[in-house]
Amino acid sequence: MNETRSSLCNARLTYSPKLPFALREGANRVRIEKGHATSPVSNEDQISKLFPVTCGAPVVHMERNDATLSKPLKVGVLLSGGQAPGGHNVISGIFDGVKSIRNDSRVIGFLNGPSGLIEGDFREITSDFLSDFRNVGGFDIIGSGRTKIETDEQFAKCAETVRSAQLDCVFIIGGDDSNTNAALLAEYFVANDVFCSVIGCPKTIDGDLKNYYIETPFGFDTASKTYAQLIGNIARDANSAKKYWHFIKIMGRSASHIGLEVGLQTQPNICLISEEVESKGMTLAQVVTQFADVVEARATSGKNFGIAIIPEGLLEFIPEFKKLIAELNDGLVELVDELEELPQIHDKVIRICDYLSPKSSNLLADLPSTIQMQLLLERDPHGNVQVSLIETEKLLIELVDNELRHRPSYTGKFKAIAHFFGYEGRCAHPSNFDSDYAYSLGYSASILAKGGFTGYMASISNLADGVDNWQACGIPTSMLMTIERRHGKDKPVIQKALVDLDGKAFLQFKSKRDKWAISESYIYPGSIQYYGPPELSDSVTQTLKIDAQARQIKQLQAK
Amino acid sequence: MNETRSSLCNARLTYSPKLPFALREGANRVRIEKGHATSPVSNEDQISKLFPVTCGAPVVHMERNDATLSKPLKVGVLLSGGQAPGGHNVISGIFDGVKSIRNDSRVIGFLNGPSGLIEGDFREITSDFLSDFRNVGGFDIIGSGRTKIETDEQFAKCAETVRSAQLDCVFIIGGDDSNTNAALLAEYFVANDVFCSVIGCPKTIDGDLKNYYIETPFGFDTASKTYAQLIGNIARDANSAKKYWHFIKIMGRSASHIGLEVGLQTQPNICLISEEVESKGMTLAQVVTQFADVVEARATSGKNFGIAIIPEGLLEFIPEFKKLIAELNDGLVELVDELEELPQIHDKVIRICDYLSPKSSNLLADLPSTIQMQLLLERDPHGNVQVSLIETEKLLIELVDNELRHRPSYTGKFKAIAHFFGYEGRCAHPSNFDSDYAYSLGYSASILAKGGFTGYMASISNLADGVDNWQACGIPTSMLMTIERRHGKDKPVIQKALVDLDGKAFLQFKSKRDKWAISESYIYPGSIQYYGPPELSDSVTQTLKIDAQARQIKQLQAK
Repeated sequence: MNETRSSLCNARLTYSPKLPFALREGANRVRIEKGHATSPVSNEDQISKLFPVTCGAPVVHMERNDATLSKPLKVGVLLSGGQAPGGHNVISGIFDGVKSIRNDSRVIGFLNGPSGLIEGDFREITSDFLSDFRNVGGFDIIGSGRTKIETDEQFAKCAETVRSAQLDCVFIIGGDDSNTNAALLAEYFVANDVFCSVIGCPKTIDGDLKNYYIETPFGFDTASKTYAQLIGNIARDANSAKKYWHFIKIMGRSASHIGLEVGLQTQPNICLISEEVESKGMTLAQVVTQFADVVEARATSGKNFGIAIIPEGLLEFIPEFKKLIAELNDGLVELVDELEELPQIHDKVIRICDYLSPKSSNLLADLPSTIQMQLLLERDPHGNVQVSLIETEKLLIELVDNELRHRPSYTGKFKAIAHFFGYEGRCAHPSNFDSDYAYSLGYSASILAKGGFTGYMASISNLADGVDNWQACGIPTSMLMTIERRHGKDKPVIQKALVDLDGKAFLQFKSKRDKWAISESYIYPGSIQYYGPPELSDSVTQTLKIDAQARQIKQLQAK
Repeated sequence: MNETRSSLCNARLTYSPKLPFALREGANRVRIEKGHATSPVSNEDQISKLFPVTCGAPVVHMERNDATLSKPLKVGVLLSGGQAPGGHNVISGIFDGVKSIRNDSRVIGFLNGPSGLIEGDFREITSDFLSDFRNVGGFDIIGSGRTKIETDEQFAKCAETVRSAQLDCVFIIGGDDSNTNAALLAEYFVANDVFCSVIGCPKTIDGDLKNYYIETPFGFDTASKTYAQLIGNIARDANSAKKYWHFIKIMGRSASHIGLEVGLQTQPNICLISEEVESKGMTLAQVVTQFADVVEARATSGKNFGIAIIPEGLLEFIPEFKKLIAELNDGLVELVDELEELPQIHDKVIRICDYLSPKSSNLLADLPSTIQMQLLLERDPHGNVQVSLIETEKLLIELVDNELRHRPSYTGKFKAIAHFFGYEGRCAHPSNFDSDYAYSLGYSASILAKGGFTGYMASISNLADGVDNWQACGIPTSMLMTIERRHGKDKPVIQKALVDLDGKAFLQFKSKRDKWAISESYIYPGSIQYYGPPELSDSVTQTLKIDAQARQIKQLQAK
C-alpha cells in the first residue's frame, strides 16, 4: 500500500466504465431522435407558465450515427446536496463526453456546490486532475453544498458567471429541489438571452426521484448493497450468538426505497416501510405492538434474537406524530418565554402538554424522557423540532421493552442493540453498476449539451437488461413537475416518488415477511465485489430487477 | 438470487482455501518434528505444578513426509465466545484434516459453546452439512456460548461426554480463558485416564492472544478491513461535506490492536491507543484536551470536520477512571439502600460523591448527566458498573464540545456524529487470508490430534510471506501462561498481548499521526475483495506486514 491510496482505489482508477451501445463511439457519432411529447405530472397550466420553453418538450433518444463534425464546448459542472456513490463518474462521463466532441473542449467544476456557480468560484477539470477520482466514491473532487439557487438575484449572478466564463452548458448534479431550480434557471437563461443550456443529472440516494425514464438514482445500488452487507453481517451475528435483537435504522427520510431494498436483500424479521405505516394511519402504539408481537412470537419458540429494520423517516409518516410535531412547533414558539423559566424538563413537559391537543398531549406524555428532551430542547434555527435527530431506533427499543414488560403472555428476554447506517454508504466506491450508470448519465448529459437542449435531464433506461441494452435518453425536467403549496405559496416541485404499495417490489416483500418474521431466512450479501464472476460484480438491486420484470409483463399484456 | 443465499455466499462456498506446503497432501503425509522446549511467560514453578504434562513441552513443526497408514479418529469441536470471521473454516479444516487421515474418521460439533461439551449436546458434522458453511462468516454452524469450563465438576462431566462419545480429541476454538481452561482440561484428562486429547485454536478478534507463534488471530484481518472500509467511507463523506466531525468507537476492549490497525489503514485525524493513554497515566481531561487541540488546529485552517477513532476499552485504561469505577463498585453496594430511597439521579450523585475519594468525586461530578446515569443505574448482576455500556464516543463529543466552548481562541463550529462499529465485522465472510489461515489452523489441529498431542494449540506462522511459505506448528498452551491474582486467588492465565508501544507498528503510526491530524491523509480502503488481482484479494493487515518486517530485520541483525 502506498501512503496516499488504497489498493482498491488504485485498481478502481483504471476501471473502464461501460457505456450504452449508442454512445460507444463518442458524442459525435450519436444522433438525437425526438420521441413523444411530455406533460407534467399535474397542474399543467401552472407548470407551462413557469416553464414556457421546456414544458411539453419531447423525450429524446440517442442512437448511433455517422461521424459528424462539431465545435468545442466549454461546460461547467456542480454537485449539490448529499453525497451519492458515482458522483465522480457523472463528472468523468461529462468530461469524456465533451472531449469526444472535440479535444479542445473544456470542463470547469464549481466549488462546494451551487454557491460556486453563484459566486463564480471554480477550477478547471483536466484529465490529470480527474484521473485521481475516476470510479471512486465521494464528492471531494469539487465538493458539494446545500445552497439553493432560487431567487432572481441568484439567477442573475449565475448568468454573470456563465457569461464571464463563456460557458455553453452548466450541468447540475442534484436531487429534486436542485433539478427544479436547474429547470427554472434554464428558463431564466432563455428569457434573458444567456446562451448557456442547463442540464440536470438526477441524484438522490433515497430513491425518491424516479419515473419511467429514471428507473433508479445513481448511488442507490452501492449504498443499499453497503447497508445490506452490514445488516447481513449483524444478522449472522444475531443468529450465531442468539441473544440480541438488533434495531437498525437505515437511511431514507422522505421515502423507504432503501429500507425496502435492504429488506429484500437480507430478509430480516421486521422491516417497516414508512409509506405503509402512513397509508394505514398507524399510531405509534400500533407500530410498537407490531414489533412486540414479532418479538413475542419468536420468544415463544425460544428465539430471543432478531433483526428489525426501521426507515429513518418513520416518525414523520406516523400521522399522530406528524401532528404532534406541528403542534409542538407552534407551541414552542408561542410559549418560549414561559418554558424558559421552567428549569426542569419535567415541568416543561407538563406545561406544553397543557397547550397541546389532548391526543398530542397523551402521545408526548407517554414518550420516554430522553425523547421528550430531544423534542423540547433540540430545535433548528427556525425554532422547529429537529425530527431527524430523534433516535427512532432507541425510542422503539424502549417502547417495545416497556410493552413486553406489561404482557403477561411474554416470558422471553428482550435485549436490544441500536444501530443507524447512513454515512457508511454515501461515499462508498461505486459498484460496477453505479460506475457504469453514473458515467453513462454524464456522457449522455454531454450529448444533450451538444444538441443544445436545456431544462432537460439525462436518463439511462432499461437498466436491468445489461449495459448492451441500456437506452440513453433525455427528458424535460418539467415532465416530473407538479405544484405544491409551500409556506403559503404555490411552488413547482418534482413529485416525490414514494414506495408504491401496489408495486411488485413491495408486494413481493409483503408476501414473504410473515415467514421471515418467525424464521431465520436471513441472507448475508457480504461486501460489494468489483471483480470476479459477473453475477457478483455486475448484479443489480432487487427493486430494479422486480420493477423490470413487472414492466415486461405489462408490455407483453399490452401487445 | 435464490431466496436462501446471496450470490457471494454461493461463490464463497466453492472457494478452495490454500494450505501451507507441508499439509497439502493430507495429514498422513505430515511428519511432526519436535523443536525447542518451551517455558511459560513467567511463574514457571506454579505453572509447572498446574500443567505437569505440557509445561515445558516442545514446540512442534510440521513437515512433508512419506505416506503413512493411520487409524480413523473421532473428534469433537466447539466454538467459545464472540464470533470471529473464519470460525467455520477452522471447523472445515479440522474436518478435512481428519478425513484425510481416514475417510471413516468422524467429527461431531458441540452445540452452543462449552455447555454442549459439558452437557453432551452435539450433532454429527457431515460433508453435506458442512458444505453450507465453508468460507462464509458466522458461528451459526453449531452456535457458540460463554460458559466457562473451570470447575472439577465440569471437568468430570466433560470426561463423561468424551468417554460416552468415544472421542480421540476435543478441539476448543476460543479466546484466552477458553484456551487456559482447555489446557487445564487436557491435564485433567491425562491425570484421570481419559484417553482424549484437547487441542486449542486461538480465537480473539481483539488481537490480544499473540506471541511469536501466534502472529495474529484469525478473523482480525476481515474484521479490521470491514471497520476500515466503513471508516474510509465516512472519512470520504466528511472530506466531501466538510461539516462534521465523526467520533468512531471501534471494537477492542482489552487491547487496541484493531484501533491501531484501522488507524494505519485509514490515516484519520485522531486515533487513540488505550495502551498509550494508560502508560502516560493520562486523565480524562487530558484526553479531552488532546482532542480539542486537534479540532481547534483544524478549525484554524477552516476545517470544521475530521475523523477520530476511539478504542472501545479506552475508559478502562484511564487510571483515574479505573479508580472511579472501582470505588463506585464498592460504594454502590455499600450504599444500596440509601441510594434507592433517593428518587432523583441528581441526589444520588451528590450522595455517592460524598462517599468517593475527592479525586473520584470531582471526576464523577464533572461527567455529563447521561453518563452519570449510566454509571449509577446500569449495573451487571453482581452490582458492578457496566463500563462496556458507556457510550464513550458520545461522552467525548460532549466533553470536547464543552472544552471548546470555554476556549476564547476557538472560533470554529463543532458538530460531531457518533458511531460504534463492532457487530458489523465479527460475522463478515472471511477474507481469503482468513479463509486460508483459519482452515490451515484447523487442518494443523487435526494433525496434532493424530500425533496424540494434548494441551497444545495449533499455530501457523510466517503469515506475511505468502501461503507457500506458511509454517504449520503446534505449541503447548502453557507457553503463554502466567499467574494472576483474581478474586484473591492465584490463577493461571494467558498473558494478554497489548499493543507494544515500542513495536514498529505503533512507532510507525506515532511518527505520522501529527501530519494526519491537520491534513486529510485519509485512505479509503473500500470493501473486502475476494476476487481480482492478488494485491486486492490476498493482502494482509498493516500490523502483520510491519511486524514481519521488524522480525526480518531482527533476524538479519542476529546473524
